[in-house]
Amino acid sequence: MNLSTSTTPLEHAHNPDAPLLLTMGDVCGIGPEIIAKAFQFIAAHGAVVVGDIGVMQRAAQALGGLQVVAVGNPMERIPVHCIPVWQVPNLPPDLLHIPYGQVDARAGFAAYACIKHAVSLVQNQQGRAIVTAPVHKAALAAAQVGFPGHTEMLQALATPAGATPPAVRMMLLNAELRTVLVTVHVSLRRAIEAITLEAVLETIKIAHQAALQMGIAQPRLAVAGLNPHAGEGGLFGEEEIQTILPAVQAAQALGIQASGPYAPDTVFMRARNTFDHPGEFDIVVAMTHDHGLIPVKYLGLAHGVNMTLGLPFVRTSPDHGTAFDLAGKGLADPSSLLAAIDMARSATKSR
Amino acid sequence: MNLSTSTTPLEHAHNPDAPLLLTMGDVCGIGPEIIAKAFQFIAAHGAVVVGDIGVMQRAAQALGGLQVVAVGNPMERIPVHCIPVWQVPNLPPDLLHIPYGQVDARAGFAAYACIKHAVSLVQNQQGRAIVTAPVHKAALAAAQVGFPGHTEMLQALATPAGATPPAVRMMLLNAELRTVLVTVHVSLRRAIEAITLEAVLETIKIAHQAALQMGIAQPRLAVAGLNPHAGEGGLFGEEEIQTILPAVQAAQALGIQASGPYAPDTVFMRARNTFDHPGEFDIVVAMTHDHGLIPVKYLGLAHGVNMTLGLPFVRTSPDHGTAFDLAGKGLADPSSLLAAIDMARSATKSR
Repeated sequence: MNLSTSTTPLEHAHNPDAPLLLTMGDVCGIGPEIIAKAFQFIAAHGAVVVGDIGVMQRAAQALGGLQVVAVGNPMERIPVHCIPVWQVPNLPPDLLHIPYGQVDARAGFAAYACIKHAVSLVQNQQGRAIVTAPVHKAALAAAQVGFPGHTEMLQALATPAGATPPAVRMMLLNAELRTVLVTVHVSLRRAIEAITLEAVLETIKIAHQAALQMGIAQPRLAVAGLNPHAGEGGLFGEEEIQTILPAVQAAQALGIQASGPYAPDTVFMRARNTFDHPGEFDIVVAMTHDHGLIPVKYLGLAHGVNMTLGLPFVRTSPDHGTAFDLAGKGLADPSSLLAAIDMARSATKSR
Repeated sequence: MNLSTSTTPLEHAHNPDAPLLLTMGDVCGIGPEIIAKAFQFIAAHGAVVVGDIGVMQRAAQALGGLQVVAVGNPMERIPVHCIPVWQVPNLPPDLLHIPYGQVDARAGFAAYACIKHAVSLVQNQQGRAIVTAPVHKAALAAAQVGFPGHTEMLQALATPAGATPPAVRMMLLNAELRTVLVTVHVSLRRAIEAITLEAVLETIKIAHQAALQMGIAQPRLAVAGLNPHAGEGGLFGEEEIQTILPAVQAAQALGIQASGPYAPDTVFMRARNTFDHPGEFDIVVAMTHDHGLIPVKYLGLAHGVNMTLGLPFVRTSPDHGTAFDLAGKGLADPSSLLAAIDMARSATKSR
């Protein structure tokens, strides 16, 4: 398994016999609950929680179902219908005393410590991929972790001292659609400035590599435009002519089956792949956060998965946050986490 | 019937006994064909084609079905299973000699003449609303019509000499979702500049008025943000704080049930109204062309309808173009036109 591109110097082979590593997330949110619920559907020996045994016991007891089992190493086989937990060392002792639904530095620190631990496990071949439950930005900030979210954290943790961090991109996908984003969490004004030939080409290359790793032999990549009607020949903006088309052509010159730029309003509809509507493309490269996320989310959050591309290992997550308002009530829906688990598993299966 | 807002000085009461007026569109495109096909599903006395009898006869004959009947006035009752056509005077005599699928000034002029004629009919209470088949921008330009498309043309034709043209907005809707756009056919850079408090507030008011006219007693309007996560409290852009929120508040002060700004990536999903997912909002006000159109089009073009708001009469159209590549082949799908007809009819029914 190798998600890196030519521009990504970091490579790891994953161990297909190792379990998926599920990081617990922020204990004030729905993370532990949806993980416990997910184990009602997945085989215990396929995944291990990287977190806190006490927190997971509370979550499991609330469901009245599965038993939590501490594992001595992630490869340990345990009975099915149990929740295997790898206790992360040196977590704050009072995690169970933090009320649900609030920003707490201890919860932020614990979430970070679990992720850091999971990265070292996957780097040591003791996990095949990482599936992360939601963290809370404000809690990470309160814990002075220094990373605003998962992506930046994983990018840094995956980089050996002195090495250049890999270029990473966010892929959002569900059963019908996959989209990879050129720009993410910046204002639309800044996003427009960030859409350079290099950024678009890098995104196309990362998306192509990811598609190959997902088992798509000849990935068909659609590159969306930025402007209405993809600029209507320059009438509604120059970015398609100046930047996006040259990036598509450069990708084609590398042998990548990329095409576009296409009108943003119809390219996702064309790529949509369902029983009665075979998609024209395997992945859509979208210029902005919302061009890509609006169609992925339109049919409902439950089945959306977030996948970070460009890391030296597979990382997926559900496409929702900590949902503080739902935490501790037993109402959280594990569907998106289950989809993320499925995706991580299929992206790392032996071929 | 009154689609105008406080800022729109033009008012017309529609005549609910008058038929819908279907303008023929560009004869080199699929317009005449989809109109002829639509009459297989609608009652003849509910709608009249404003166009050319010869062109409609050719379209009807190709289907091997309905008979074309020239009507002396739009209110004339004719047998069902016929296609009533009001012959627009002074059309080019050689419309039938123009090959399908090409830009032609005669076709452009004829398309314009039909629309102009339909406007005068609706203004004289001889039509209850206008449903337009597609025109081609280049053909209109070749005919030196002076308007790039339907919206500008209708806006000008609806304005008495010396009066201020009404503020108009595009609404796109299908069975699940309605969205009204603040900006349309400009580059994304220019769209960002065009998102002023006045433009957003005007759009909210027009959307509110339209919802009332569609029979929604207490319209719930969601206003989408411009930036990812609606700016995340100013971190990803200031437009939500500086412009959009004040516009929402100004609308609320007018008694309009508007809320937001909401994150663009989830607001359409939340507004989506289906059998098993009651929408949280009746209309989403979208800042850009593609934020609004991506979700409306995502499930397929066939059922999308375009409705021009702010005119002194109801005007709808299918959400597709002339489809020159399909013209004359009998393959065109009338679904979107039928949806546009349904929408025009329901927006003008007696209450």
